[in-house]
Amino acid sequence: MNRKSNTVLSQIGRRTADSPISWLMRTKLERPNLVSLAAGFTDNESLPLEGSRRLLNELLNDESVGRTALQYGSTAGDDTLRELTAMRIEELDKISIDNKTADLSKRMVITHGSQQFLYILTEALCDPGDIVLVEDPTYFVYLGIMQSRGLSGRGISMNHDGIDLENLEMVLESLRRSGELKRTKILYLVSYFQNPTGRSTSLSIKKEALNLLRKYERAAGHPIYLLEDAAYRELGFSGESNSSALSICGSSERVIYSGTYSKPFATGVRVGFGVLPEVLLEPFLRIKSNHDFGTSHLIQKLVLRALDSGEYMKNLAKAQCRYQVKANVMNDSLSDYFPDLVKWEKPQGGLNFWAELPRSMNTGLKSKLFQEALNQDVLYVPGSLCYVEDASRRKPSYEMRLSFGAASEKDIRKGIRSLGNVLKCK
Amino acid sequence: MNRKSNTVLSQIGRRTADSPISWLMRTKLERPNLVSLAAGFTDNESLPLEGSRRLLNELLNDESVGRTALQYGSTAGDDTLRELTAMRIEELDKISIDNKTADLSKRMVITHGSQQFLYILTEALCDPGDIVLVEDPTYFVYLGIMQSRGLSGRGISMNHDGIDLENLEMVLESLRRSGELKRTKILYLVSYFQNPTGRSTSLSIKKEALNLLRKYERAAGHPIYLLEDAAYRELGFSGESNSSALSICGSSERVIYSGTYSKPFATGVRVGFGVLPEVLLEPFLRIKSNHDFGTSHLIQKLVLRALDSGEYMKNLAKAQCRYQVKANVMNDSLSDYFPDLVKWEKPQGGLNFWAELPRSMNTGLKSKLFQEALNQDVLYVPGSLCYVEDASRRKPSYEMRLSFGAASEKDIRKGIRSLGNVLKCK
Repeated sequence: MNRKSNTVLSQIGRRTADSPISWLMRTKLERPNLVSLAAGFTDNESLPLEGSRRLLNELLNDESVGRTALQYGSTAGDDTLRELTAMRIEELDKISIDNKTADLSKRMVITHGSQQFLYILTEALCDPGDIVLVEDPTYFVYLGIMQSRGLSGRGISMNHDGIDLENLEMVLESLRRSGELKRTKILYLVSYFQNPTGRSTSLSIKKEALNLLRKYERAAGHPIYLLEDAAYRELGFSGESNSSALSICGSSERVIYSGTYSKPFATGVRVGFGVLPEVLLEPFLRIKSNHDFGTSHLIQKLVLRALDSGEYMKNLAKAQCRYQVKANVMNDSLSDYFPDLVKWEKPQGGLNFWAELPRSMNTGLKSKLFQEALNQDVLYVPGSLCYVEDASRRKPSYEMRLSFGAASEKDIRKGIRSLGNVLKCK
Repeated sequence: MNRKSNTVLSQIGRRTADSPISWLMRTKLERPNLVSLAAGFTDNESLPLEGSRRLLNELLNDESVGRTALQYGSTAGDDTLRELTAMRIEELDKISIDNKTADLSKRMVITHGSQQFLYILTEALCDPGDIVLVEDPTYFVYLGIMQSRGLSGRGISMNHDGIDLENLEMVLESLRRSGELKRTKILYLVSYFQNPTGRSTSLSIKKEALNLLRKYERAAGHPIYLLEDAAYRELGFSGESNSSALSICGSSERVIYSGTYSKPFATGVRVGFGVLPEVLLEPFLRIKSNHDFGTSHLIQKLVLRALDSGEYMKNLAKAQCRYQVKANVMNDSLSDYFPDLVKWEKPQGGLNFWAELPRSMNTGLKSKLFQEALNQDVLYVPGSLCYVEDASRRKPSYEMRLSFGAASEKDIRKGIRSLGNVLKCK
């Protein structure tokens, strides 16, 4: 970019870095022979082709429903879709039927993918210089939003059942002492089959985290929200998941929940959603109205019909099964081809393995390892991309995220074998 | 909103006002008996129900195309859709086939409605306090983006063929003198069948405006972009439109063009697009990547197929015809029922009439007139909503925008008659 044009850009325009996800997606699209264990594409075989065709046919055959689907809707999203989504959350949270549905659906917004929910939410809450607490490591695309918007982060270390509460308290305490708590707005947790580690956060950790956040509210001078990103929630191989933070008593004013139909149904459909404390709903909708005054009604109606007809659950069960098979293939391949020094946990859902190499090895984008892997036509996500900039610790750079979502079983084996060969030569 | 939650919001979160369009859309959705001559909904009868059904069927019946449609695409949007869109622009601009298509399509981004294009573009170029020049009056939803992002505006007065160039030069000159030109980034023109006035900007005005902007570049220290919003371009009753600013020699580095398939095809599909100078493309895509990493692939593929199969043009011709009929009905109704003191021009396209009352009358949201109209079950857009905040002139408040897009012929007559009665009692 030449200097002249650079001076015309806004701070956001100048600051926003290229997102690794764009680069990874582009690389895969441009090099079809590459085995990508990196991009977050989902399994092509599980896409609901026949179901979507049938549902869209029904939808557009019905004069009245069809016209509604092809016309603008409301900024918050289709009422029935919000109700069905609220019911689905309650089903997953094992909450018996009471007036909670009405409550959840009224605090819900349908977005163009959950990414848009995360973006607008962050826009509504955070100014440049504000602080978001994230898991160490975390979903790297959210780090992109933070970077673009000039936010600071603090990494909270993770155990196998979620963030380390002692570490969270230590970080909150140090922010209080430095006066930075006033700028701290959000604790962001990817709570189910986390991207990138595959780990899930237990309900008790969510509860304790929420208590800790409340404890520091007075010093902050405002709420510190628990933002639960449940994108992978329905991708548990068993179909089960523990309860969300929405189920915690009295959480409605402090918990923000984001979910998506992109991953469990179809990424090309891009329907996400979020539940907000009531006081945040109006500011969120006002901003959403400026973004696009509402998500495409047609794709909302498709998802609604998929949920209502049972097609969604049928397809989901199939997808869960497929991902379990692929996770097994990746696990076996890792056992077969990776050197013994590499450690990993087999996830119970989601789309990713998280492999830990000896600390002396570097997996970064500019490392020899990454380059050699590319030369062998295999792509992974360097672990360092998943860590927030945080001066209080050195960024780990000896891990890799390996996705089994998009690649075929054959390619998973091939990719892991190639990667194993590269690793063995180190 | 209670004070405590207010303190947690960002500047944008606190600042963003409720958009009149949300309120108008909500009011219409909540009061089905209301005759809305306000909301920008399009004609229900012209929605491509049968065509969309057939195209989606074909699309999802084809294994390979279907899977692509249900999977993530690229952030910039589908390559073929961008090429077809570029060809369509060149057709409208009467540019003969050369390598311009490749050029336009490479500088093009597909967005979730053109509203998203306008939002991200403004995000990429403007910081709070920056200045955008707009038509007086202009598209009020863009004013919402400006308000939310803390931008200032200057209104440029309009003639029947677009902005008044003398006034533009005067404003540029006064900004130069006050040192504010350094903060001036965009001249925003809704150039075809403008929302709200229905007027179109001639090519020569676009050329001269571009020359003037260039003349002040040195003093600004950066380009001042001509942003041409061509949302209504294809809604000309004759199917014809004059050439866009993209056709002006040497414009590629200074003209930004936004268009949409929402209005001419289906508002529920929400596919928009924009063409950018090359230097702005990367910053735009980086931000778009954080918003949603790409527009729903399914709705992109639907539009692509509509364009490719001829369904788009077939439906468009039908829509143009419908809108012409409805514009005639509104024109006749205005003649029949409005008092003689009210002036209006019959538009040659678009969705709106702009009616000018005697200056002593107030049409504002809080006026008696507006309330009485609501009591009579008819809704219009108060003209004052379409004017930017600009200390250099008093905001006119004696006009109304009357849309014939959504209402049936019967309702147009009924609505105009009710409004006429309210006006005659004044």
